[in-house]
Amino acid sequence: MADAVLFEFLHTEMVAELWAHDPDPGPGGQNMNLSVLESVGFRVGQALGERLPREMLAFREELDVLKFLCKDLWLAIFQKQMDSLRTNHQGTYVLQDNSFPLLLPMAAGLQYLEEAPKFLAFTCGLLRGALCTLGIESVVTASVAALPGCKFQVVIQNS
Amino acid sequence: MADAVLFEFLHTEMVAELWAHDPDPGPGGQNMNLSVLESVGFRVGQALGERLPREMLAFREELDVLKFLCKDLWLAIFQKQMDSLRTNHQGTYVLQDNSFPLLLPMAAGLQYLEEAPKFLAFTCGLLRGALCTLGIESVVTASVAALPGCKFQVVIQNS
Repeated sequence: MADAVLFEFLHTEMVAELWAHDPDPGPGGQNMNLSVLESVGFRVGQALGERLPREMLAFREELDVLKFLCKDLWLAIFQKQMDSLRTNHQGTYVLQDNSFPLLLPMAAGLQYLEEAPKFLAFTCGLLRGALCTLGIESVVTASVAALPGCKFQVVIQNS
Repeated sequence: MADAVLFEFLHTEMVAELWAHDPDPGPGGQNMNLSVLESVGFRVGQALGERLPREMLAFREELDVLKFLCKDLWLAIFQKQMDSLRTNHQGTYVLQDNSFPLLLPMAAGLQYLEEAPKFLAFTCGLLRGALCTLGIESVVTASVAALPGCKFQVVIQNS
Protein backbone atom coordinates (compact mmCIF):
# COMPACT_ATOMS: atom_id res chain seq x y z
CA MET A 1 0.00 0.00 0.00
CA ALA A 2 2.52 2.54 -1.21
CA ASP A 3 2.01 6.25 -1.60
CA ALA A 4 2.16 5.93 -5.36
CA VAL A 5 -1.03 3.93 -5.23
CA LEU A 6 -2.67 6.64 -3.17
CA PHE A 7 -1.81 9.27 -5.77
CA GLU A 8 -3.06 7.05 -8.59
CA PHE A 9 -6.32 6.26 -6.79
CA LEU A 10 -6.91 9.91 -6.02
CA HIS A 11 -6.23 10.84 -9.65
CA THR A 12 -8.59 8.15 -10.93
CA GLU A 13 -11.38 9.23 -8.59
CA MET A 14 -10.90 12.90 -9.37
CA VAL A 15 -11.39 12.08 -13.06
CA ALA A 16 -14.41 9.90 -12.27
CA GLU A 17 -15.96 12.61 -10.11
CA LEU A 18 -15.68 15.21 -12.87
CA TRP A 19 -17.59 12.99 -15.28
CA ALA A 20 -19.92 11.48 -12.67
CA HIS A 21 -22.69 14.02 -12.94
CA ASP A 22 -22.75 14.04 -16.72
CA PRO A 23 -21.14 10.99 -18.32
CA ASP A 24 -21.59 12.48 -21.79
CA PRO A 25 -21.12 16.23 -21.38
CA GLY A 26 -20.70 17.02 -25.09
CA PRO A 27 -17.62 18.65 -26.62
CA GLY A 28 -17.98 21.85 -24.53
CA GLY A 29 -18.38 20.08 -21.19
CA GLN A 30 -15.68 17.58 -22.08
CA ASN A 31 -13.25 20.41 -22.81
CA MET A 32 -14.17 22.17 -19.57
CA ASN A 33 -13.49 19.02 -17.54
CA LEU A 34 -10.17 18.49 -19.35
CA SER A 35 -9.27 22.10 -18.69
CA VAL A 36 -9.99 21.66 -14.96
CA LEU A 37 -7.71 18.61 -14.84
CA GLU A 38 -5.01 20.42 -16.79
CA SER A 39 -5.06 23.39 -14.44
CA VAL A 40 -4.99 21.22 -11.33
CA GLY A 41 -2.02 19.38 -12.88
CA PHE A 42 -0.34 22.69 -13.70
CA ARG A 43 -0.47 23.88 -10.10
CA VAL A 44 0.75 20.51 -8.77
CA GLY A 45 3.61 20.64 -11.30
CA GLN A 46 4.49 24.16 -10.20
CA ALA A 47 4.47 23.10 -6.55
CA LEU A 48 6.68 20.11 -7.31
CA GLY A 49 9.02 22.34 -9.29
CA GLU A 50 9.34 24.71 -6.35
CA ARG A 51 10.59 21.88 -4.17
CA LEU A 52 13.48 21.08 -6.48
CA PRO A 53 16.98 21.63 -5.15
CA ARG A 54 18.27 25.05 -6.13
CA GLU A 55 20.99 23.67 -8.37
CA MET A 56 18.34 22.04 -10.55
CA LEU A 57 16.81 25.42 -11.22
CA ALA A 58 20.07 26.49 -12.85
CA PHE A 59 19.85 24.20 -15.88
CA ARG A 60 21.53 25.93 -18.76
CA GLU A 61 20.14 23.91 -21.62
CA GLU A 62 16.50 23.32 -22.48
CA LEU A 63 17.34 19.74 -23.37
CA ASP A 64 18.77 19.16 -19.88
CA VAL A 65 15.50 20.29 -18.36
CA LEU A 66 13.54 17.90 -20.54
CA LYS A 67 15.91 15.06 -19.67
CA PHE A 68 15.41 15.86 -16.00
CA LEU A 69 11.61 15.61 -16.40
CA CYS A 70 11.89 12.29 -18.22
CA LYS A 71 14.23 10.80 -15.65
CA ASP A 72 14.01 12.31 -12.16
CA LEU A 73 10.52 13.80 -12.17
CA TRP A 74 8.96 10.73 -13.79
CA LEU A 75 10.78 8.46 -11.35
CA ALA A 76 9.57 10.48 -8.36
CA ILE A 77 5.97 10.42 -9.54
CA PHE A 78 5.59 7.11 -11.36
CA GLN A 79 8.54 5.00 -10.10
CA LYS A 80 9.79 4.58 -13.65
CA GLN A 81 11.53 6.64 -16.30
CA MET A 82 10.07 7.85 -19.55
CA ASP A 83 10.92 5.39 -22.31
CA SER A 84 12.18 7.82 -24.89
CA LEU A 85 12.75 11.50 -25.59
CA ARG A 86 13.01 12.88 -29.09
CA THR A 87 13.39 16.43 -30.34
CA ASN A 88 13.47 18.26 -33.65
CA HIS A 89 15.99 20.69 -32.08
CA GLN A 90 13.55 23.50 -32.82
CA GLY A 91 11.70 23.57 -29.53
CA THR A 92 9.50 20.51 -29.97
CA TYR A 93 10.00 17.45 -27.79
CA VAL A 94 8.20 14.13 -27.83
CA LEU A 95 8.26 12.18 -24.57
CA GLN A 96 7.11 8.60 -24.92
CA ASP A 97 5.96 6.32 -22.12
CA ASN A 98 5.21 2.80 -23.37
CA SER A 99 3.25 1.90 -20.26
CA PHE A 100 1.89 5.02 -18.64
CA PRO A 101 0.75 4.18 -15.08
CA LEU A 102 -2.36 6.40 -15.15
CA LEU A 103 -3.61 4.54 -18.23
CA LEU A 104 -3.03 1.08 -16.74
CA PRO A 105 -6.41 0.87 -14.96
CA MET A 106 -8.08 1.09 -18.38
CA ALA A 107 -8.47 -2.19 -20.14
CA ALA A 108 -6.41 -2.29 -23.29
CA GLY A 109 -8.51 -2.10 -26.37
CA LEU A 110 -9.27 0.28 -29.20
CA GLN A 111 -12.75 0.94 -27.84
CA TYR A 112 -11.26 2.74 -24.86
CA LEU A 113 -9.02 5.04 -26.85
CA GLU A 114 -11.51 7.87 -26.77
CA GLU A 115 -11.53 7.75 -22.96
CA ALA A 116 -7.77 8.25 -22.80
CA PRO A 117 -7.66 12.09 -22.85
CA LYS A 118 -9.33 12.15 -19.42
CA PHE A 119 -6.37 10.30 -17.98
CA LEU A 120 -3.72 12.44 -19.66
CA ALA A 121 -4.92 16.01 -19.06
CA PHE A 122 -3.67 16.21 -15.47
CA THR A 123 -0.19 15.03 -16.47
CA CYS A 124 -0.02 17.46 -19.41
CA GLY A 125 -0.68 20.22 -16.90
CA LEU A 126 1.84 18.79 -14.47
CA LEU A 127 4.59 18.84 -17.12
CA ARG A 128 3.64 22.38 -18.14
CA GLY A 129 3.65 23.51 -14.49
CA ALA A 130 7.04 21.96 -13.71
CA LEU A 131 8.52 23.52 -16.87
CA CYS A 132 7.02 26.88 -15.92
CA THR A 133 8.73 26.80 -12.52
CA LEU A 134 11.96 25.97 -14.33
CA GLY A 135 11.50 29.10 -16.43
CA ILE A 136 10.20 27.51 -19.62
CA GLU A 137 6.81 28.40 -21.10
CA SER A 138 5.34 25.54 -23.09
CA VAL A 139 2.28 23.95 -24.60
CA VAL A 140 1.89 20.28 -23.69
CA THR A 141 -0.45 17.87 -25.43
CA ALA A 142 -0.75 14.09 -25.30
CA SER A 143 -1.80 11.35 -27.65
CA VAL A 144 -2.35 7.61 -27.45
CA ALA A 145 -1.72 5.17 -30.25
CA ALA A 146 -1.81 1.88 -28.33
CA LEU A 147 -2.89 1.61 -24.70
CA PRO A 148 -1.29 1.86 -22.19
CA GLY A 149 1.43 3.72 -24.10
CA CYS A 150 1.27 7.42 -24.78
CA LYS A 151 3.24 10.37 -26.07
CA PHE A 152 3.49 13.82 -24.59
CA GLN A 153 4.39 16.58 -27.02
CA VAL A 154 6.04 19.62 -25.48
CA VAL A 155 6.29 22.71 -27.67
CA ILE A 156 8.45 25.43 -26.15
CA GLN A 157 7.06 28.94 -26.52
CA ASN A 158 9.30 31.86 -27.52
CA SER A 159 12.38 29.71 -27.56
CA MET B 1 10.21 15.07 -3.84
CA ALA B 2 8.49 12.09 -2.30
CA ASP B 3 5.22 10.57 -3.36
CA ALA B 4 3.59 11.74 -0.14
CA VAL B 5 4.11 15.29 -1.29
CA LEU B 6 2.47 14.50 -4.60
CA PHE B 7 -0.64 13.18 -2.85
CA GLU B 8 -0.76 16.21 -0.56
CA PHE B 9 -0.33 18.66 -3.44
CA LEU B 10 -3.02 16.92 -5.46
CA HIS B 11 -5.37 16.97 -2.47
CA THR B 12 -4.72 20.67 -1.85
CA GLU B 13 -5.33 21.56 -5.50
CA MET B 14 -8.46 19.44 -5.71
CA VAL B 15 -9.87 21.39 -2.75
CA ALA B 16 -8.77 24.70 -4.29
CA GLU B 17 -10.34 23.79 -7.63
CA LEU B 18 -13.70 23.01 -6.05
CA TRP B 19 -13.85 26.43 -4.43
CA ALA B 20 -12.13 28.29 -7.27
CA HIS B 21 -15.21 29.18 -9.25
CA ASP B 22 -17.18 30.37 -6.25
CA PRO B 23 -15.06 31.23 -3.22
CA ASP B 24 -18.17 31.82 -1.11
CA PRO B 25 -20.72 29.29 -2.35
CA GLY B 26 -23.13 29.67 0.60
CA PRO B 27 -24.13 26.82 2.93
CA GLY B 28 -25.70 24.76 0.11
CA GLY B 29 -22.73 25.01 -2.24
CA GLN B 30 -20.30 24.50 0.62
CA ASN B 31 -22.08 21.29 1.60
CA MET B 32 -22.12 20.08 -2.00
CA ASN B 33 -18.36 20.64 -2.32
CA LEU B 34 -17.73 18.87 0.99
CA SER B 35 -19.91 16.01 -0.17
CA VAL B 36 -17.91 15.68 -3.40
CA LEU B 37 -14.67 15.50 -1.40
CA GLU B 38 -16.16 13.00 1.01
CA SER B 39 -17.31 10.73 -1.81
CA VAL B 40 -13.96 10.90 -3.62
CA GLY B 41 -12.31 10.02 -0.29
CA PHE B 42 -14.74 7.16 0.23
CA ARG B 43 -13.88 5.54 -3.08
CA VAL B 44 -10.14 6.00 -2.51
CA GLY B 45 -10.55 4.44 0.94
CA GLN B 46 -12.46 1.51 -0.56
CA ALA B 47 -9.75 1.01 -3.18
CA LEU B 48 -7.02 1.12 -0.52
CA GLY B 49 -8.99 -1.34 1.59
CA GLU B 50 -9.24 -3.74 -1.32
CA ARG B 51 -5.47 -3.85 -1.57
CA LEU B 52 -5.03 -5.01 2.00
CA PRO B 53 -3.58 -8.46 2.56
CA ARG B 54 -6.32 -11.03 2.95
CA GLU B 55 -5.48 -11.77 6.57
CA MET B 56 -6.22 -8.18 7.48
CA LEU B 57 -9.74 -8.58 6.18
CA ALA B 58 -10.28 -11.24 8.85
CA PHE B 59 -10.11 -8.92 11.85
CA ARG B 60 -12.36 -10.32 14.50
CA GLU B 61 -12.76 -7.27 16.69
CA GLU B 62 -13.98 -3.84 15.69
CA LEU B 63 -11.34 -2.28 17.94
CA ASP B 64 -8.60 -4.14 16.04
CA VAL B 65 -9.82 -2.63 12.79
CA LEU B 66 -9.75 0.85 14.27
CA LYS B 67 -6.24 0.27 15.65
CA PHE B 68 -5.18 -0.86 12.20
CA LEU B 69 -6.47 2.37 10.65
CA CYS B 70 -4.70 4.49 13.28
CA LYS B 71 -1.43 2.68 12.87
CA ASP B 72 -0.89 1.02 9.49
CA LEU B 73 -3.25 2.95 7.25
CA TRP B 74 -2.21 6.33 8.67
CA LEU B 75 1.46 5.39 8.34
CA ALA B 76 1.00 4.37 4.71
CA ILE B 77 -0.81 7.59 3.84
CA PHE B 78 0.72 10.21 6.10
CA GLN B 79 4.05 8.65 7.24
CA LYS B 80 2.97 8.97 10.86
CA GLN B 81 0.59 7.27 13.25
CA MET B 82 -2.56 8.72 14.74
CA ASP B 83 -1.73 10.22 18.15
CA SER B 84 -4.56 8.67 20.13
CA LEU B 85 -7.60 6.44 19.87
CA ARG B 86 -10.40 6.53 22.41
CA THR B 87 -13.69 4.68 22.51
CA ASN B 88 -16.82 4.61 24.64
CA HIS B 89 -17.05 0.85 23.93
CA GLN B 90 -20.47 1.49 22.43
CA GLY B 91 -19.46 1.92 18.83
CA THR B 92 -18.04 5.43 18.99
CA TYR B 93 -14.34 6.04 18.42
CA VAL B 94 -12.38 9.27 18.53
CA LEU B 95 -9.14 9.31 16.55
CA GLN B 96 -6.92 12.25 17.33
CA ASP B 97 -4.08 13.57 15.17
CA ASN B 98 -2.22 16.42 16.86
CA SER B 99 -0.57 17.51 13.64
CA PHE B 100 -2.67 16.43 10.68
CA PRO B 101 -0.56 16.72 7.49
CA LEU B 102 -3.39 17.98 5.27
CA LEU B 103 -3.95 20.88 7.67
CA LEU B 104 -0.28 21.86 7.84
CA PRO B 105 -0.36 24.10 4.74
CA MET B 106 -2.87 26.31 6.55
CA ALA B 107 -1.31 28.92 8.78
CA ALA B 108 -2.19 28.28 12.39
CA GLY B 109 -4.67 30.77 13.73
CA LEU B 110 -8.25 30.93 14.86
CA GLN B 111 -9.26 32.90 11.78
CA TYR B 112 -8.60 29.84 9.61
CA LEU B 113 -10.66 27.45 11.68
CA GLU B 114 -13.70 27.85 9.46
CA GLU B 115 -11.64 26.79 6.43
CA ALA B 116 -10.66 23.52 8.09
CA PRO B 117 -13.65 21.37 7.02
CA LYS B 118 -12.51 21.63 3.39
CA PHE B 119 -9.29 19.88 4.31
CA LEU B 120 -10.93 17.14 6.38
CA ALA B 121 -13.84 15.98 4.20
CA PHE B 122 -11.72 13.81 1.90
CA THR B 123 -10.11 12.01 4.84
CA CYS B 124 -13.47 11.44 6.55
CA GLY B 125 -14.57 9.72 3.36
CA LEU B 126 -11.33 7.78 3.14
CA LEU B 127 -11.80 6.38 6.66
CA ARG B 128 -15.43 5.52 5.93
CA GLY B 129 -14.43 3.81 2.66
CA ALA B 130 -11.65 1.76 4.23
CA LEU B 131 -14.00 0.69 7.05
CA CYS B 132 -16.65 -0.22 4.50
CA THR B 133 -14.26 -2.54 2.66
CA LEU B 134 -13.43 -4.10 6.03
CA GLY B 135 -17.14 -4.81 6.53
CA ILE B 136 -17.96 -1.98 8.92
CA GLU B 137 -20.59 0.64 8.11
CA SER B 138 -19.87 3.95 9.82
CA VAL B 139 -20.45 7.67 9.94
CA VAL B 140 -17.24 9.69 10.12
CA THR B 141 -17.04 13.35 11.04
CA ALA B 142 -14.12 15.59 11.93
CA SER B 143 -13.54 18.59 14.11
CA VAL B 144 -10.69 20.97 14.80
CA ALA B 145 -10.00 22.64 18.10
CA ALA B 146 -6.47 23.93 17.54
CA LEU B 147 -4.75 23.84 14.14
CA PRO B 148 -3.11 21.70 12.87
CA GLY B 149 -4.60 19.13 15.24
CA CYS B 150 -7.93 17.44 14.57
CA LYS B 151 -10.23 14.69 15.72
CA PHE B 152 -12.09 12.17 13.61
CA GLN B 153 -15.20 10.71 15.19
CA VAL B 154 -16.23 7.30 13.89
CA VAL B 155 -19.70 6.10 14.83
CA ILE B 156 -20.31 2.48 13.88
CA GLN B 157 -23.72 1.77 12.42
CA ASN B 158 -25.74 -1.26 13.52
CA SER B 159 -22.95 -2.54 15.70
